[in-house]
Amino acid sequence: MGKTIIEKILSSHSGQDCQANDIVVAQVDFVMGQDGTSPLAIRAYENMDGKELFDPEKVALVIDHSSPSPLEGVSALHKIMRQFAKQKGCHLYDIGEGVCHQLIPESGKVGPGSLVIGADSHTCTYGALNAFSTGVGSTDLAGGLISGKMWFKVPETIKFVCNGVLPSGVYAKDLILYLIGQVTADGCTYMAAEYTGEAIAALSMEGRFTISNMAIEMGAKAGLMEADDKTFAWLKQYTERQFTAVSADANANYYKVLELDVSNLEPQVAKPHRVDNVSPLSEVKGLPIQQAFLGTCTNGRLEDLRIAASILAGKKVHPDVRFIVAPASRKIYLEAMEEGVIQRLVEAGAAVVTPGCGPCVGTHNGVPSDGETVISTANRNFKGRMGNSNAEIYLASPATVAASALTGVISDPRDFVK
Amino acid sequence: MGKTIIEKILSSHSGQDCQANDIVVAQVDFVMGQDGTSPLAIRAYENMDGKELFDPEKVALVIDHSSPSPLEGVSALHKIMRQFAKQKGCHLYDIGEGVCHQLIPESGKVGPGSLVIGADSHTCTYGALNAFSTGVGSTDLAGGLISGKMWFKVPETIKFVCNGVLPSGVYAKDLILYLIGQVTADGCTYMAAEYTGEAIAALSMEGRFTISNMAIEMGAKAGLMEADDKTFAWLKQYTERQFTAVSADANANYYKVLELDVSNLEPQVAKPHRVDNVSPLSEVKGLPIQQAFLGTCTNGRLEDLRIAASILAGKKVHPDVRFIVAPASRKIYLEAMEEGVIQRLVEAGAAVVTPGCGPCVGTHNGVPSDGETVISTANRNFKGRMGNSNAEIYLASPATVAASALTGVISDPRDFVK
Repeated sequence: MGKTIIEKILSSHSGQDCQANDIVVAQVDFVMGQDGTSPLAIRAYENMDGKELFDPEKVALVIDHSSPSPLEGVSALHKIMRQFAKQKGCHLYDIGEGVCHQLIPESGKVGPGSLVIGADSHTCTYGALNAFSTGVGSTDLAGGLISGKMWFKVPETIKFVCNGVLPSGVYAKDLILYLIGQVTADGCTYMAAEYTGEAIAALSMEGRFTISNMAIEMGAKAGLMEADDKTFAWLKQYTERQFTAVSADANANYYKVLELDVSNLEPQVAKPHRVDNVSPLSEVKGLPIQQAFLGTCTNGRLEDLRIAASILAGKKVHPDVRFIVAPASRKIYLEAMEEGVIQRLVEAGAAVVTPGCGPCVGTHNGVPSDGETVISTANRNFKGRMGNSNAEIYLASPATVAASALTGVISDPRDFVK
Repeated sequence: MGKTIIEKILSSHSGQDCQANDIVVAQVDFVMGQDGTSPLAIRAYENMDGKELFDPEKVALVIDHSSPSPLEGVSALHKIMRQFAKQKGCHLYDIGEGVCHQLIPESGKVGPGSLVIGADSHTCTYGALNAFSTGVGSTDLAGGLISGKMWFKVPETIKFVCNGVLPSGVYAKDLILYLIGQVTADGCTYMAAEYTGEAIAALSMEGRFTISNMAIEMGAKAGLMEADDKTFAWLKQYTERQFTAVSADANANYYKVLELDVSNLEPQVAKPHRVDNVSPLSEVKGLPIQQAFLGTCTNGRLEDLRIAASILAGKKVHPDVRFIVAPASRKIYLEAMEEGVIQRLVEAGAAVVTPGCGPCVGTHNGVPSDGETVISTANRNFKGRMGNSNAEIYLASPATVAASALTGVISDPRDFVK
């Protein structure tokens, strides 16, 4: 019988010809933790009498969630990570480097066929590189750090066939929000999503990362894509290592195949307080906002910043709106300065924060006030997500966020994109 | 009898021919509060049954200390400021604009002969513009907001005559640290300092702001300088308003005149936990540091960033050091990008935070961990100042901070400055 992408990756990493619902123990290629999860993983590692890492070269700790530290207690956690990394010889990305889910791809350590675990729910991002990457808890991470192995029940796969080409002013973010709205937050629980079709092929790697990043918001264990020339060209910037594409077999067995045509898709928003509470933007157009946020592992990449800058260039953010921008990595920050993108955003009134997670998780750098409405490019709008349970968060594309920052109300970017 | 600068400014603003130790009620030209003090001032204003501001054009509230907000409680305070500013029609500088003591000078509202009160102890900064500006408490600020007036006991003046020219690698910051070390933290309590002489005349406006900024660290009510061509050229960038220089009379009466020659001054540091615990840098050279901070109302200006970038260009921050940079204003941030200064700092490994106070006051953006040593361009190194009472803070010039960030130990910038 033919295999899906995830069945192939788990077969190659377990040495076992597996299929959906089998239980396997697989070798992992890379292990990652961030500052919200690593300190717990390090404690668990010590409780497991962990002595050495399975391979320090294949381990990275990333200080991105509360970076630079806003509180003494957080600083103590960062110190635990720094000391552990130094002692064990693994990679450490300290303040100013960026978001883990941009840094790990940029490290060149992950590509087609890789298996990665990370103690962060959006580890599924690297699915855009044709890798099986998934989020695990801190204790599982500790086991992975010691053994380099992880057990999995091989996920079933749902295939999303996205035909057509996205209209102007409609982006990967709108597509994934739409899909999440369709299948709901538990529509793919413990399954792998495979995103394929003309619309996916047409996307930049940035757009693809956005889509794979949000696979978890439909409950998926992974959000996989095929590797193509764009994938390999992207990887070539970061590593000379040769990866081999992993394709699903024509006769692979899917739990379900969902087909759609994206040609007439409108900009989408996820409304409070669920990511799957999705509607066309038109339904909430005109709603006043007080804060707009551009950034995160979902939409803090160069293309995202460029789109926002193109809408805001030569204009001013609405006086009632704070517009916060967090580049996803040092590299993106530098490239965006090289192009004048950061400059245009700052001239328009943006508050650029240190590359990292910014205010996404509510631990610093832009906690909203009571009663405020935020429009954000992030991936979650749960009650309290940004640090205040009396604020409402709408999720949208960078274009929609920029257009809304400009007008002070949720706005349709198609009115601004040339 | 002749008059000092402060006697002249208080005479003109009180309509009373006053001299030191007189009590006067003076009209103020500008009133400022920041996010640590304004919410209390607003409450006091309401308790005083304040209805309208004395002149909304002459009032600014600045969100700079915890900006963007790291906590829900802080966000609530910011909201109070935003609502008050909107309701009363005064200026509001929101997140991303910068530090109050850079923004108020940039506003063009303050110049030679101005009288400014601000609910921040470093309001004395504008003394570099030949203005009498001073820090007041939140309740005094509230009175000022309503009446546009403030009572003062006219300060005595100590005159610092700084002869000679600072050697290469030695800066305004080293000079003011040296002076504070000499006179101690209460050496000028409730007095005005007048800084004059060849060494002051030779300084850029940036260097002069650094010196006036730290007048409070010797206990002074004000840190005044004469206005010269540099002062007027600087002001011309920001306003067309004509100011008239206020000079001390030749026969003015000084409490004390201190004269020194700066030609052989060495780089200085203030050691924990007092600003007047000053020694030549050579005494602490080689001490390992874990964090370096460039920014604040003392040293976050373009010249400061340029000096640091010139030391770090093409090199890398030491791996054991976090190097945090906070440009003092949006304008400085943009100018520093225009020149490639931010780029060089980021390439070297800096974590650039949003223009504002950065980690100076310990509320966010770089709280050190227990047992860590920080070298900083800020103006205070009190125990706990940066949010952790188990950290030690050394104060130094931007050049010393950059050189130390590079090597990982407190280093002499003269070994690096070309």
